[in-house]
Amino acid sequence: MSNIDIFIWEFLGTTVLCLLGNGSVAAVVLKNSYSHGGGGDWLIIVLGWGFGVFAGASVAGPSGAHINPAVTLAVAISGGIPWSSVPVYWAAQMLGGIVGASLCWAAFKLQFDAMDDNSGTRGIFCTSPSVRRFRWNIVTEIIATFVLVLWILTDPKSNQSLGYAAVSFVVITIGFGLGGPTGYAINPARDLGPRIAYWFLPIPGKAGPDWRYSWVPVLGPLLGAAAAAGLSLVLP
Amino acid sequence: MSNIDIFIWEFLGTTVLCLLGNGSVAAVVLKNSYSHGGGGDWLIIVLGWGFGVFAGASVAGPSGAHINPAVTLAVAISGGIPWSSVPVYWAAQMLGGIVGASLCWAAFKLQFDAMDDNSGTRGIFCTSPSVRRFRWNIVTEIIATFVLVLWILTDPKSNQSLGYAAVSFVVITIGFGLGGPTGYAINPARDLGPRIAYWFLPIPGKAGPDWRYSWVPVLGPLLGAAAAAGLSLVLP
Amino acid sequence: MSNIDIFIWEFLGTTVLCLLGNGSVAAVVLKNSYSHGGGGDWLIIVLGWGFGVFAGASVAGPSGAHINPAVTLAVAISGGIPWSSVPVYWAAQMLGGIVGASLCWAAFKLQFDAMDDNSGTRGIFCTSPSVRRFRWNIVTEIIATFVLVLWILTDPKSNQSLGYAAVSFVVITIGFGLGGPTGYAINPARDLGPRIAYWFLPIPGKAGPDWRYSWVPVLGPLLGAAAAAGLSLVLP
Amino acid sequence: MSNIDIFIWEFLGTTVLCLLGNGSVAAVVLKNSYSHGGGGDWLIIVLGWGFGVFAGASVAGPSGAHINPAVTLAVAISGGIPWSSVPVYWAAQMLGGIVGASLCWAAFKLQFDAMDDNSGTRGIFCTSPSVRRFRWNIVTEIIATFVLVLWILTDPKSNQSLGYAAVSFVVITIGFGLGGPTGYAINPARDLGPRIAYWFLPIPGKAGPDWRYSWVPVLGPLLGAAAAAGLSLVLP
Repeated sequence: MSNIDIFIWEFLGTTVLCLLGNGSVAAVVLKNSYSHGGGGDWLIIVLGWGFGVFAGASVAGPSGAHINPAVTLAVAISGGIPWSSVPVYWAAQMLGGIVGASLCWAAFKLQFDAMDDNSGTRGIFCTSPSVRRFRWNIVTEIIATFVLVLWILTDPKSNQSLGYAAVSFVVITIGFGLGGPTGYAINPARDLGPRIAYWFLPIPGKAGPDWRYSWVPVLGPLLGAAAAAGLSLVLP
Repeated sequence: MSNIDIFIWEFLGTTVLCLLGNGSVAAVVLKNSYSHGGGGDWLIIVLGWGFGVFAGASVAGPSGAHINPAVTLAVAISGGIPWSSVPVYWAAQMLGGIVGASLCWAAFKLQFDAMDDNSGTRGIFCTSPSVRRFRWNIVTEIIATFVLVLWILTDPKSNQSLGYAAVSFVVITIGFGLGGPTGYAINPARDLGPRIAYWFLPIPGKAGPDWRYSWVPVLGPLLGAAAAAGLSLVLP
Repeated sequence: MSNIDIFIWEFLGTTVLCLLGNGSVAAVVLKNSYSHGGGGDWLIIVLGWGFGVFAGASVAGPSGAHINPAVTLAVAISGGIPWSSVPVYWAAQMLGGIVGASLCWAAFKLQFDAMDDNSGTRGIFCTSPSVRRFRWNIVTEIIATFVLVLWILTDPKSNQSLGYAAVSFVVITIGFGLGGPTGYAINPARDLGPRIAYWFLPIPGKAGPDWRYSWVPVLGPLLGAAAAAGLSLVLP
Repeated sequence: MSNIDIFIWEFLGTTVLCLLGNGSVAAVVLKNSYSHGGGGDWLIIVLGWGFGVFAGASVAGPSGAHINPAVTLAVAISGGIPWSSVPVYWAAQMLGGIVGASLCWAAFKLQFDAMDDNSGTRGIFCTSPSVRRFRWNIVTEIIATFVLVLWILTDPKSNQSLGYAAVSFVVITIGFGLGGPTGYAINPARDLGPRIAYWFLPIPGKAGPDWRYSWVPVLGPLLGAAAAAGLSLVLP
């Protein structure tokens, strides 16, 4: 597949992922929306992101449905794609994160404007730790991404007819089981892309993009993915 | 397939969709029902509509399972059906929306009658914006329908064995991620059909059908679907 | 398949269905259980029954996975089984309903005993209308079962690889969309079997089994199933 | 398959299962986590464990995806594996339970440390009865595991293309329908492994591991699985 085609599909898939995922957090955070206040907030976020992976991965199917720089790294380590393709994947995914987040902002524009205080809406776009201590925050992101990538690399043929629903179910259980402490980025583009979008979008009274934390949900997922890819090379 | 067969299957499928979807909103809005007041309201609505798409699309399988005029438009643009079939699809879908909503009313008749005040029950049938500014409301409907139709037109073979569960999962994540601001019509027949039904059904103390807004959830989905169909024509 | 085999599989499948379904209602009704009081009650009930259909139907796969006298009636009308098998199916399903409900009672025995007042626990076993007017209650049961059986009889090949998850998804959306008014029996054995069990089980301070209502969730589903079977005979 | 390979795959699969499952309980029990306090607690736990089975079973696919000593026992009784493999499976599963629970602790380390009182956090790792009377607690575990194993041993070919999602759906309905009274161990390794981990992990102010109850969620599942395996031998 040509680099241009890779770029297009990964860009579209990551755009869809971040649009739907960011929107699912917006759904519970922003007032003046029908999704707000009915209870089950964490379920909405986890199921929204989880099936958002289904939608985004389906769209990015032709390019292998990475939609995640950490997955691209693991596939490259495993020999699934040439290393020269990695920058193309990464650039497309990052751009998709930025555009997806911007479309989410457009869809919820009236809700952002109607908030008295937008200082707490950064969490719609990017993650931050519920308890802030970077050393342990990165441990959580490493473990969560390790599970995701280990599953991707060992996923058996018996799941094949589930299509992209399979990875969706895994992201759902990772959200429930490992999402609470850091908000489970498990995907550098899903975090850094929308963080950049949050930084430049015209949201009244917004807070800063928290650049100080921003490297954790980039490095953690890459380390977790690399570890899983390394393990999978020695597995029977 | 003959026009009569198209009409029958699309009518039945859209009837089932709107019956189950309208009912899922009724479940949380109407008092004196077992589904009311237990929490997780938005989850009930989103999962009810989402799996309602599974049921309705399954029934309308023989005619291609559009059950949505916006999908029909996109399929026509993509060359999947002749333009001469479009009015047949649209008429059947609209009639299905009206009949489905009426059956929903019959199923919940005692609950409607037991309400002290039915001025807030229009939302069971058709959408309205949580913040009213038509220009941005239509943006939300365009984006949400664009995602739905882009997915439909690019859905890869690897999802094929999911049958109509696949589109169901996509409608679920669209509900979570993009449903809050306008109630996600993403389907003109699902909105205008039940709106007409609401207008003539004998619900005591009901409000007006809000005709002023009614064109937004018709035009928005059609525009979003056309944009996605146009894009898919130039995709690699 | 011999009548004895039909009996065994339908009995086992309906037992599993009613054990898991009754248990899902017990989960939210009975205090002193981990499932009680965390919110999302209707979701627990609908998803518990819904995936309970998956479990029960899977077990009853060899006999066609009816686990519902209304489905058996519809299949007989459609010519799928000889009329002479119907009493065998029905007897097995009824016995399964009784045994499943009894096992549910055993699993929750300590919870029943710890209740101050068991006068409200009949709803664990069998349905009753939230607003009591039999004429409209039966309309709700007819509509809900009509949707179920119409789906079963028209389910397209594209859903085939979903196995019994497909019917599970339909029962879930019926629960959300049409379950609120009468508690959606949509299955005479699921209602009458556990009602009989409730009547003889040693639950301290229990109420009566409400025999006066008991014919509605038997007759309604049979009528709805017959109507759907009749319709399917004339569909293209 | 060699014993070493069996050990590796069962260990990895059970590790993933217990990491995600324990984490899903941590998500609702531990404060200072994004998953805490939004409602739908039981849904988070049941869906987290349920799809955790999907993830863990997928990883353990090469060894048959037991990840549960009770399932291993049932498969051995049914003749699916030689009895000499049973200790290998069991040891790997137990070790996986310990390691998975320890990784869960690491992922939530800051949340454990931030709790004022960790005397109630044992439930994250292992089960205890909501009403304590061992005779009936074991009945609940027997019934729940019986359903699981009966389903596994009778699962029809029509579910085959669901892969490990099928068992996931069954564990979800068992969680809803039979999980409330004892917390549904239904798996000795999932209970005893994390119990041992809880005993040695450095959690400030933790309670004891409740060894007195620990045999119930080991013996109950084994008895239930043996009963289901015995039944399946005589089924037609």
